[in-house]
Amino acid sequence: MADIARIRHVAARLVRAKDEGHDVVAVVSAMGDVTDELLEMARQLTDRPSRRELDMLLATGEQVSSALLALAINSLGYRAVALTGGQGGIITDGGFTRARILKVDPARIREEMARGNIVVVAGFQGVGPGNDITTLGRGGSDATAVALAAALGAPVCDICTDVDGVYTADPRVVRNARKLPVISYEEMMELAYVGARVLQARAVEMASQQRVVIHLRSSFSDGPGTLVKEVPAVENAKPVVGVVHDPDVARVTLLSVPDRPGVAHRIFYALAEAGINVDMIVQSTRHEASTDVLFTVSRADLMQAMEIVQAVGRELGAGGCVFDAGVGKVSIVGSGMATHPGVAARMFGALARNGINIQVISTSEIRISCLIDAADLERAVTALHDEFELGLG
Amino acid sequence: MADIARIRHVAARLVRAKDEGHDVVAVVSAMGDVTDELLEMARQLTDRPSRRELDMLLATGEQVSSALLALAINSLGYRAVALTGGQGGIITDGGFTRARILKVDPARIREEMARGNIVVVAGFQGVGPGNDITTLGRGGSDATAVALAAALGAPVCDICTDVDGVYTADPRVVRNARKLPVISYEEMMELAYVGARVLQARAVEMASQQRVVIHLRSSFSDGPGTLVKEVPAVENAKPVVGVVHDPDVARVTLLSVPDRPGVAHRIFYALAEAGINVDMIVQSTRHEASTDVLFTVSRADLMQAMEIVQAVGRELGAGGCVFDAGVGKVSIVGSGMATHPGVAARMFGALARNGINIQVISTSEIRISCLIDAADLERAVTALHDEFELGLG
Repeated sequence: MADIARIRHVAARLVRAKDEGHDVVAVVSAMGDVTDELLEMARQLTDRPSRRELDMLLATGEQVSSALLALAINSLGYRAVALTGGQGGIITDGGFTRARILKVDPARIREEMARGNIVVVAGFQGVGPGNDITTLGRGGSDATAVALAAALGAPVCDICTDVDGVYTADPRVVRNARKLPVISYEEMMELAYVGARVLQARAVEMASQQRVVIHLRSSFSDGPGTLVKEVPAVENAKPVVGVVHDPDVARVTLLSVPDRPGVAHRIFYALAEAGINVDMIVQSTRHEASTDVLFTVSRADLMQAMEIVQAVGRELGAGGCVFDAGVGKVSIVGSGMATHPGVAARMFGALARNGINIQVISTSEIRISCLIDAADLERAVTALHDEFELGLG
Repeated sequence: MADIARIRHVAARLVRAKDEGHDVVAVVSAMGDVTDELLEMARQLTDRPSRRELDMLLATGEQVSSALLALAINSLGYRAVALTGGQGGIITDGGFTRARILKVDPARIREEMARGNIVVVAGFQGVGPGNDITTLGRGGSDATAVALAAALGAPVCDICTDVDGVYTADPRVVRNARKLPVISYEEMMELAYVGARVLQARAVEMASQQRVVIHLRSSFSDGPGTLVKEVPAVENAKPVVGVVHDPDVARVTLLSVPDRPGVAHRIFYALAEAGINVDMIVQSTRHEASTDVLFTVSRADLMQAMEIVQAVGRELGAGGCVFDAGVGKVSIVGSGMATHPGVAARMFGALARNGINIQVISTSEIRISCLIDAADLERAVTALHDEFELGLG
């Protein structure tokens, strides 16, 4: 929620849903830059904030939003009650700043609904052991919404954001990108995983497990968005539903690593310990006795990853460590891929015809990703969008 | 707490107290204008905010302060834990926006102290029935501090504010006003009651009941302030310890009210229902059958009080209703008054010699207050400060 005008707009929409006869439970995120401002204050005080106190600090952002949204609903003449995550029954483990939801106790929410209240729950947060406030980390508000929808048996969970749905490619880059009316959980998870920022993979995974239908839509306009749900496999469906590009990628290569068991474990354990997510990994033997280990991380993590890998590399007697921040990743996703042979070949062919060199390839059952020069990224998205005819309905 | 620099300063002071061997529990208020900003957002949404949701909103201000102060203490290499009012064991009734503390359960605080933590509790708030967040209303942070000091058996409760103690008069008005090293609970309560803004009467009352010594001092500097404690009566003590002036006063007069039983009840019950505090009250018979009823309220409440009294006046068949916002109150306070005859006469004499007309007089055992023209207020304070020789040590 960006500001007071946006809160009013959301209140009006919730009231409309109530008028249509629905019980309404809303989950809110923090307003505008509130979370960043709180983090900046913490940063001014210390480089290594206590994660417990960070959670106490950050949770206030959503609490403010929930109270204001409830007041906005009141001002329209409707009853509303604001609840913190803990009051809303979001019970988590004690993993401050990245807590997992252990259980949802919807008793209080049901009680408030029975009283005729529109219930507004502060997202992104819960209560952990010892009654301490926890936050759920990235995508936490979406996760809260899905968890509550599941616990309450809601038929659909609207997730309102600043885009109005899931597109076949980023519409800012590909002019004829098309909004998808429906997408399967699996495809949405892959899209999120490879860098589509519309919805967090975590919330989609939870929705998939709990069979909650997500309606991803704009918080500015009232039109339909994209439904994320179980989609029966249909023959002759298009093999690819979307192309995603992610410029936030950097490549690290540790050269001439002695080829011994446990080497990969040493490297990636050290990175995981530091909380760095590693994406693509390639290990390629150049000589008999040594290999190169290449992986990608987000650009924000690059310098820390280099420090760690250099240290591990010295211990292992590796030949050195280089990085390239001028790379990007382009991916195609589609459940139909498994039953349409030759999709990978078509992808590589389209890139080759456009003179785009592929550095690394990684795949899942329903996805193919290529690491390429960052400068080629937008051309690659457009070429693949055309190749798989995604602009056509 | 005003800003990040102030938080650092407070952290340093708490760490010093810890180094001196004390267990340290701090109670914090919201930073700078945070509370006003939150209220302003609520006001933009509705004229009649739900008090429950207002409390959820406002409580975040102190929660942010507590988390940041704990982080600041961490950054000095000390252990600290931030607690909301509820986590700190402040149990209140359900009177949102002006909850009363019912009980303090200091178990969690003791536990954290035993772990070596400096404990930082969000003031002004607690948890009421149904686990709802409540706020304590004006002076709530001071009340939290005193309640916790009592529950923990602390020898002294420092209350740090933007003044460095209690003065014989407002030093901005009276040049030779003197800081009092010690003042009794009773005197401090009267000073607070008549408009000294240094400490809320509520916190002093609680301290008096629980025999907690308050050390009122500056949050900017480390010098001693004023101790508020039980002071044995000493003969020959000065009859007056301080002069307080309060410009935030307005006078309302309901004219020619039929003189029947229950009339005063009707008027003041209606004002109390609206949450308006009435201070001085005078009822004076002019004719046999009717009286004038005069009272004072704070200027912020004047318009609402007029509306209420006009409505009640019409029902009662009163002659009309007038107000004067150009008045102020000057008061002298001192426990010695009871044993020094002639204090009132000296006060009235000093005002008369300075040509200051007295409109209304009210007294307690240890206080005399006069309603006068607002224009005379500062001259009156100076004259009374001189009359009772308060500038001399």
